[in-house]
Amino acid sequence: MAGSWRDNLRVVMVETRNPLNIGAAARAMANFGFSRLRVVNPYDVAFREARSAVGAAPLLAKAEGYGSVAEAVADATLVVGTTSVGHRELQHPIRRLEYGGKLIRKRLENGGVALLFGSEKFGLSNDHLSHCHWLMRIPTVDQQLSMNLGQAVALCLYELARDPKAASAKPEATRPAAAGDVEQVTRMLLEALRRSGYVNPLTAGTTEEKVRRLAMRWKLGARDAPVLMGMLRQILWKLGRE
Amino acid sequence: MAGSWRDNLRVVMVETRNPLNIGAAARAMANFGFSRLRVVNPYDVAFREARSAVGAAPLLAKAEGYGSVAEAVADATLVVGTTSVGHRELQHPIRRLEYGGKLIRKRLENGGVALLFGSEKFGLSNDHLSHCHWLMRIPTVDQQLSMNLGQAVALCLYELARDPKAASAKPEATRPAAAGDVEQVTRMLLEALRRSGYVNPLTAGTTEEKVRRLAMRWKLGARDAPVLMGMLRQILWKLGRE
Repeated sequence: MAGSWRDNLRVVMVETRNPLNIGAAARAMANFGFSRLRVVNPYDVAFREARSAVGAAPLLAKAEGYGSVAEAVADATLVVGTTSVGHRELQHPIRRLEYGGKLIRKRLENGGVALLFGSEKFGLSNDHLSHCHWLMRIPTVDQQLSMNLGQAVALCLYELARDPKAASAKPEATRPAAAGDVEQVTRMLLEALRRSGYVNPLTAGTTEEKVRRLAMRWKLGARDAPVLMGMLRQILWKLGRE
Repeated sequence: MAGSWRDNLRVVMVETRNPLNIGAAARAMANFGFSRLRVVNPYDVAFREARSAVGAAPLLAKAEGYGSVAEAVADATLVVGTTSVGHRELQHPIRRLEYGGKLIRKRLENGGVALLFGSEKFGLSNDHLSHCHWLMRIPTVDQQLSMNLGQAVALCLYELARDPKAASAKPEATRPAAAGDVEQVTRMLLEALRRSGYVNPLTAGTTEEKVRRLAMRWKLGARDAPVLMGMLRQILWKLGRE
């Protein structure tokens, strides 16, 4: 499933404070088939032990450490910084995740892309940002800009792995019951209603139509029709002959 | 920003073990403008203190506790369970997040939708699932199905808040420099090259064209042209007259 274009992405975590967030990033990478994690000066060197990286241990073990952003992005032809766009005056073009993800996805087909995530507290500094071609922001609501770091990484990777065609895909329909089975359910239900005294003999015709329309609206599945017949059979047996 | 359709979503966390994950869910809800959090039998009743809910304290304080899934979803007209589709035989239609998100988004326009998340360890039980109309799965790669709970919540909410139109939006272009400024930069650079002895008098015409084409490819921004002219002016001063 994990294709070669995915191997062109480098996820670069810059000065991350909490190793759990590196673990969370690693797990999200594994979830979406990305494998190249780089860390620049994390606060805690024991990041490889990060607990939250369930199922991502091999990925963490392969993570590469760097002493500067310049070194960590040296082999990328496109460098993108992530930002929550706080109050700083930003000198870069900013692209929303939906659009930026598309640009990155295209570039990954034939070149390395470095995607940078700053520290939990300060984000990317102006110095870090100066290594970026442009910035990408997750479209949070204005009142609540700052995201959890692990969640932000997951969202960016999901957008890259997302399949726009899947949005219009029809779900597999459940196989519908045959009309004959629906009719048998209708007749059994009607019989149960008759034996219970629900049906007024004067309006029996109307009731039958009402019950049939009801059974049609249920859109019974092929698997559910026999279950329903079994239930009704038992009820009819218990109700006895009129 | 947070519109009324968002108020129709209930995020329902069922038997969550780690209160930090409830906090992470609350934070993601705040990030994307959702407000109605419900918890069914969390393992730790002190969930309202969840540390990871930076900026989501009011949302956590308003969270409603329930003793059963049935009660927590009673006012919803659509109930959707999230799943990583493990080895269980599932009886429900399963929709990918891209498509399921679209269906939920549509329903939220005029009715309540409950979106269920199971426990970190076991997900939603068959009993919980029996309350769902259908299931939604995040398109992770086959080898690595299971996601971190807080990240899974963030992805589902992002997909709901995502603007498909934004994917094709053109970024704001940086205002390009006027041709006159580009030409001045070209001439100053040429002059610096002449004074440095880079230009062979016999091929000066070719060099001029080469430098001009190079300056064109830089696609200079209106803001960068004067910066570059200042730099070249200083270099020319230092180089002195020929």
